[in-house]
Amino acid sequence: MSPRIITLLTDFGTEDYFVGAMKGVILTRSPEAVVVDITHAIPPQDVRAGAFTLSAVYSNFPAGSIHLAVVDPGVGSDRRPVLIEAADYLFIGPDNGLFSIVLDRVPGAKIRHVTNSDYFLPDRSSTFHGRDIFAPVAAALAQGLPPGELGPIIQDPVRLGLTECEFLSDGAIAGRVIHIDHFGNCVTNLGFGEQRNIIQSSGLCS
Amino acid sequence: MSPRIITLLTDFGTEDYFVGAMKGVILTRSPEAVVVDITHAIPPQDVRAGAFTLSAVYSNFPAGSIHLAVVDPGVGSDRRPVLIEAADYLFIGPDNGLFSIVLDRVPGAKIRHVTNSDYFLPDRSSTFHGRDIFAPVAAALAQGLPPGELGPIIQDPVRLGLTECEFLSDGAIAGRVIHIDHFGNCVTNLGFGEQRNIIQSSGLCS
Amino acid sequence: MSPRIITLLTDFGTEDYFVGAMKGVILTRSPEAVVVDITHAIPPQDVRAGAFTLSAVYSNFPAGSIHLAVVDPGVGSDRRPVLIEAADYLFIGPDNGLFSIVLDRVPGAKIRHVTNSDYFLPDRSSTFHGRDIFAPVAAALAQGLPPGELGPIIQDPVRLGLTECEFLSDGAIAGRVIHIDHFGNCVTNLGFGEQRNIIQSSGLCS
Repeated sequence: MSPRIITLLTDFGTEDYFVGAMKGVILTRSPEAVVVDITHAIPPQDVRAGAFTLSAVYSNFPAGSIHLAVVDPGVGSDRRPVLIEAADYLFIGPDNGLFSIVLDRVPGAKIRHVTNSDYFLPDRSSTFHGRDIFAPVAAALAQGLPPGELGPIIQDPVRLGLTECEFLSDGAIAGRVIHIDHFGNCVTNLGFGEQRNIIQSSGLCS
Repeated sequence: MSPRIITLLTDFGTEDYFVGAMKGVILTRSPEAVVVDITHAIPPQDVRAGAFTLSAVYSNFPAGSIHLAVVDPGVGSDRRPVLIEAADYLFIGPDNGLFSIVLDRVPGAKIRHVTNSDYFLPDRSSTFHGRDIFAPVAAALAQGLPPGELGPIIQDPVRLGLTECEFLSDGAIAGRVIHIDHFGNCVTNLGFGEQRNIIQSSGLCS
Repeated sequence: MSPRIITLLTDFGTEDYFVGAMKGVILTRSPEAVVVDITHAIPPQDVRAGAFTLSAVYSNFPAGSIHLAVVDPGVGSDRRPVLIEAADYLFIGPDNGLFSIVLDRVPGAKIRHVTNSDYFLPDRSSTFHGRDIFAPVAAALAQGLPPGELGPIIQDPVRLGLTECEFLSDGAIAGRVIHIDHFGNCVTNLGFGEQRNIIQSSGLCS
């Protein structure tokens, strides 16, 4: 079997020790995991941008990949850590809408509240769940831990309605810009979500 | 045998999903490949800077490495995708001069127009050949595909003349600055290309 | 045995070929090494910031990891290259205080002046020891070279006193801010160094 891939998507930037700390924890607990950076330059605390970027890339990875995403303005509050089984992938991170577009696209995804702290780091800070909770849980999953060991299924994950478009009476569709990329392209939410088979718009304008 | 290395050099930045998408495609099609970032911060569409950076680093990698480079202002036009066999390396990317300095340095390189679409992604966008064409072709090469399967040899790749210096009548040599690095050093084109054995200039000035 | 991890921490930025060149040299000489970026965005020549970042992350990696760090304003001068054995880790880089906090934290660390040039690249520049000296030495260590082969033990590494706090007569403690992170948090030196078991301050203020 190929080694298990763990991707990282955060708003941590790359100038601090944060990303390195997560990689160190993962490789300590799952030495054969292959850690792949998606991006660490999501604008700080911009959950929508994180949700969009994750939705645009997760399915390019091999089935079985574990997507660890942390854009987490509510770290330290009582927002839940969640594990999502959707399509052939696992997603782990905060329950704040970061997985909203993935959930819109994959009906029937299984969502768990991660309550079992056996796999967390023993000394946990209140501000760095990426290192202390999400990284070691991702490593445990890469080592083969069944998702069911981590906590109960929930039905009410936070959803942000990012893929909702409005079908106007004159036949037009109203969406919105949800991301502006490195080259200045605007990405709209037309064609995202479950409507994506209907609307063939590329969603790109200059 | 060691796993095959695929390096990435682009102007995609690291804030979007672009780089992650390429890595996902590569690892899906060549699970044992080792993907190494050279840089994704080539100034947008600056083919010269990409050509310089690639020329400065490719030979530090193990023989057999595959260098995937995408700085591609002409994506979606009829510019050709090319595969180059030069020294002990493979290079894959757009035919726009990005491999110009490598070609200046390695006489006798074999250049192919990549015309065989069997290894491209089935659904291709017109704006993201990095993910849809170059990444899967690099993965196929990493899996052992013979270069000859990808397309015919061509003799007229785009060359930018970046390494040409002028030998003046008073014995002086006129070159030009082709790059300014992170620390503010100016890099000239003196000492690049086939003249490099003659001119021992370090090419660095403060 | 798991492949050996080599982490990289530098002020090289990611826009140039510098980081790619180090990775290429490492993978050429130690094909099974796993190279992990900690950061390349230490502010240029800011040895203190490098020392702090390294101290915050090194122990998250598996025992046996090799931490290669280069923030090196004195490159080309007679500052020494050093190899440090501290706790279960190896550290390699310039002797300019970059390992100062690690040395404060790990009493009894063994420090060597790297004098054996057998493992350096044959053609060395005076400005890029990261590629020409530190990367190949790290690769040799990853391949199992005993540290003692690299040079003699020294007792006088450069130390910057970064973890020293002042205990004032009124019972207060005076420290200083040694880093401001991506989210704007200020990190003080309270709680670093050997005093860390006494002072429980998180060292974070907004």
